[in-house]
Amino acid sequence: MESNYNNSFPKVVIIGAGFGGIELATDLKNKEVDVLLIDKHNYHTFQPLMYQVATGRLEADSIAFSIRKNFEGQKNLRFRIAEVQKINPYKNNIETSIGVIDYDYLVIATGSTTNFFGNKEIEQHALPMKSIPEALNLRSAILQNLEASLLLKTPEEREPYLTFVLVGAGPTGAELAGSLAEIRNNILGKDYPELHKEEMKVYLVDFLPKVLANMSEQASKKAQEFLEEMNVEVLTGVKVEAYDGEVISFEGGRKIKTKNVIWSAGVQGVVPDGLPKEQIAKGNRISTDEINRVIGFNNIFAIGDVSSFVNDKYPKGLPGVAPVAIQQGKHLAKNILHLVKSEPTEKFEYNDQGSMATIGRNKAVVDLGKIKFQGFFAWLVWMFIHLILLMGFRNKVVVFINWLGSYISRNGGQRLIIRPFYKEDLKVANPGPKL
Amino acid sequence: MESNYNNSFPKVVIIGAGFGGIELATDLKNKEVDVLLIDKHNYHTFQPLMYQVATGRLEADSIAFSIRKNFEGQKNLRFRIAEVQKINPYKNNIETSIGVIDYDYLVIATGSTTNFFGNKEIEQHALPMKSIPEALNLRSAILQNLEASLLLKTPEEREPYLTFVLVGAGPTGAELAGSLAEIRNNILGKDYPELHKEEMKVYLVDFLPKVLANMSEQASKKAQEFLEEMNVEVLTGVKVEAYDGEVISFEGGRKIKTKNVIWSAGVQGVVPDGLPKEQIAKGNRISTDEINRVIGFNNIFAIGDVSSFVNDKYPKGLPGVAPVAIQQGKHLAKNILHLVKSEPTEKFEYNDQGSMATIGRNKAVVDLGKIKFQGFFAWLVWMFIHLILLMGFRNKVVVFINWLGSYISRNGGQRLIIRPFYKEDLKVANPGPKL
Repeated sequence: MESNYNNSFPKVVIIGAGFGGIELATDLKNKEVDVLLIDKHNYHTFQPLMYQVATGRLEADSIAFSIRKNFEGQKNLRFRIAEVQKINPYKNNIETSIGVIDYDYLVIATGSTTNFFGNKEIEQHALPMKSIPEALNLRSAILQNLEASLLLKTPEEREPYLTFVLVGAGPTGAELAGSLAEIRNNILGKDYPELHKEEMKVYLVDFLPKVLANMSEQASKKAQEFLEEMNVEVLTGVKVEAYDGEVISFEGGRKIKTKNVIWSAGVQGVVPDGLPKEQIAKGNRISTDEINRVIGFNNIFAIGDVSSFVNDKYPKGLPGVAPVAIQQGKHLAKNILHLVKSEPTEKFEYNDQGSMATIGRNKAVVDLGKIKFQGFFAWLVWMFIHLILLMGFRNKVVVFINWLGSYISRNGGQRLIIRPFYKEDLKVANPGPKL
Repeated sequence: MESNYNNSFPKVVIIGAGFGGIELATDLKNKEVDVLLIDKHNYHTFQPLMYQVATGRLEADSIAFSIRKNFEGQKNLRFRIAEVQKINPYKNNIETSIGVIDYDYLVIATGSTTNFFGNKEIEQHALPMKSIPEALNLRSAILQNLEASLLLKTPEEREPYLTFVLVGAGPTGAELAGSLAEIRNNILGKDYPELHKEEMKVYLVDFLPKVLANMSEQASKKAQEFLEEMNVEVLTGVKVEAYDGEVISFEGGRKIKTKNVIWSAGVQGVVPDGLPKEQIAKGNRISTDEINRVIGFNNIFAIGDVSSFVNDKYPKGLPGVAPVAIQQGKHLAKNILHLVKSEPTEKFEYNDQGSMATIGRNKAVVDLGKIKFQGFFAWLVWMFIHLILLMGFRNKVVVFINWLGSYISRNGGQRLIIRPFYKEDLKVANPGPKL
């Protein structure tokens, strides 16, 4: 196949155009390396606002950033749509859907995907939300179930279609629960005047004893308060045993009839084949050292959600959040250039600036080290931080206007069913037209 | 099933939420009728800008308007997502995917779909562009073929992937050709610096001897001039014989190797089963009288592209354009109310305010009766008229900003491949990941 490289600089192949891959590629601009960036999509997915797309509050193109557009003018970078099938670490190449690609340095930045913890039945029936197509499917499923409920005569028949159970009360689940609650409280009456708000129920469930367990006590308590004010029923310390598409069962016997189980209870790394099993840590993450190098190799690196760097400060590895991936990407750019020039490398140290989650239109919780706050001001900070994240991309102005519009309008988003969602055992009463 | 009606007013059932159906439903607001609006999608498709979505210059949600949002607050209207399977004109009901629905007055406003003139092979291999999913598939196919060409070594191998043949030089084809030419001239160099502009070819083909044959000589000539200035090769008086996914063949022997044939050479009405065959006219359109009533029936009407009202002034029926559908919708609202009150009805007369088509960023052709003009001013008029069309919808401000942004920016649109496009015999070299 056509050579992907046009000069004699060292070849850096980056797998994955998430926050980590994009930051790294950007920081290698105009340096004496040749960069090949690979992703299975031709766009970067801005994950923090995915839950808004899934609930129809924001359109998909507001969180999908064209990779080619983003790197326009960066002469030492090429982009290819490809899926990596296998890494051959001892041959310095990778096998992909577009052929075999050689590398001098390989960076695995493939991110994470939903973890169903081995439960095949739940995987078959529950809905994940880690990619734009998944978010759009989820949006279609939600809207189709609301439409389907209109065709049923009794509250008992409607109940499973109007009941939403979110498993996993981390930031993703909490944000999704808040957004669904907003649909229930603000939008249902406008779009579906024939339905009664009281019939729609939103549950947020977690195995752990509190919501947002990775944040402070204060944030945790306040988030639960906000959710309950919005009529979300929060069930903590509850373990999901099974879900067959009709009824979700919890340990201890409780059951809820629902057609809508959304799973955000865990993630696992996306690891291509070819690395030794000893380097794959818990959660399917790749073990790396303090310069993000895959243990046992000289020229293979891993950053972001897929990587796991364990030390005393972070015995479970770093959290799978955007700032970690971005800082690692920036740092690795420096280290790759050191290695290319045979200079000493610098250890990576994560600068933890805190964490946050948004619960509703004006409600968020923020932990900034010792400073913790919640409510409207926290929400402003949350918005501000995400706008800064947005600065790294080219079409920020348009996206900012879209975000602003959707936030200001109580009725943001079109809630379109562009492609009906079909899931074999999660049939809606009215399947809609085949396209 | 649940009764869809909540009072004793006459029941008007409207099939189709296109320009005609929406105008009619809007003009029956707060009148003494009960309106049930049915569509297979939960959004209205703003057709005039479909070609921009297909070429990735505008996002889908900018031309899809949520029906529920649009009719929020209209108390005498209900909306249901449904496909009509059959009309039972002698029983005053329709069979749909959500059950049997009774009516007092039925209005068929189902619009038109692509006409392949019975050629099954062309239908299988060519790409249509009459709905948003079709436009998005087309967008994916175009982008995937550009990506695929990057993996091929010689110009001969790349040629079919970079050659685009548009069949049908009416407004749709001409606008699409102009947009593809803009990608070639302005965007290819930015997104795909490894491709040579000269390798991408755009052809516009028509059986008739001129482009925009339904417009004036002046408009026709100028449109062809604009297209040729943009390096579109215009082939008129040419009949397509076959297309097998690899080579398109014309009567007389000429062939072009291409993986991209886009078909906008004809439309036909979308007619549900159940009407007598004698009422179906040429092009699968329903024959109506001067009050848009289906001939032979008292309480069934047809408006817009699916209808055909023939008289001396319009021996072939009215053109299938938005202003016709909108005027008919408005007029039919008046006539239905007359009928309900046993008053005399008014004949429909189309007020032809002219026609237009846009060819490029600043180039359009406009015929306003005796006044004909082309170029930049024509394009401003084209924009203005479409903005007026937009006024009938609720989310006009956001959409206007999106349109403005895309027009001002030479690089509007994200050109995302959200879902890879698969067509059995139109395989791309790099099929991309399955989702």
